[in-house]
Amino acid sequence: MNILVTYDVKTETPEGRKRLRRVAKTCLGYGQRVQWSVFECSLDPSNLERFKMKLLKIISMDEDSLRIYKLHGDRENAVEAWGLDRYHDFSDTLIL
Amino acid sequence: MNILVTYDVKTETPEGRKRLRRVAKTCLGYGQRVQWSVFECSLDPSNLERFKMKLLKIISMDEDSLRIYKLHGDRENAVEAWGLDRYHDFSDTLIL
Repeated sequence: MNILVTYDVKTETPEGRKRLRRVAKTCLGYGQRVQWSVFECSLDPSNLERFKMKLLKIISMDEDSLRIYKLHGDRENAVEAWGLDRYHDFSDTLIL
Repeated sequence: MNILVTYDVKTETPEGRKRLRRVAKTCLGYGQRVQWSVFECSLDPSNLERFKMKLLKIISMDEDSLRIYKLHGDRENAVEAWGLDRYHDFSDTLIL
């Protein structure tokens, strides 16, 4: 399942900056950073559940925002990207 | 069609900060801000094309990143939101 995770973490306090680092680190373990606070992930339902639980333990419900979008169908049909594009499709054949 | 627009604009220069303001202002005209640089929009294909063209005229292809995701199916099935949620469904009946 192709998943998009986006977040806003309030970073006005040291605790907020710590949460931001932890959210980003957790996301890096499950997907690819495509923008500063946007990650694309390809996950089965159980990994998605695990990922989500980790994020929900980190964020502050009163100060931060976390959104998870399910992208149905092929990734190529669901996304258009312009400008800097950090995404690399690891399911493609790697040509060396 | 439900659309998600996400962007990173490089704001280290006055030109970049101006681009950021213009991108945000354009997005506000077409959808709802759900996070700092994430907007949800409900657009028909011609409005989506117009919106996209406006954004592409503003961003710097070398410095910024713009992504547009198409969310297929019902919005409710495509998105999960935690913490602060700015989204308001204007297609719902308004109870006063």
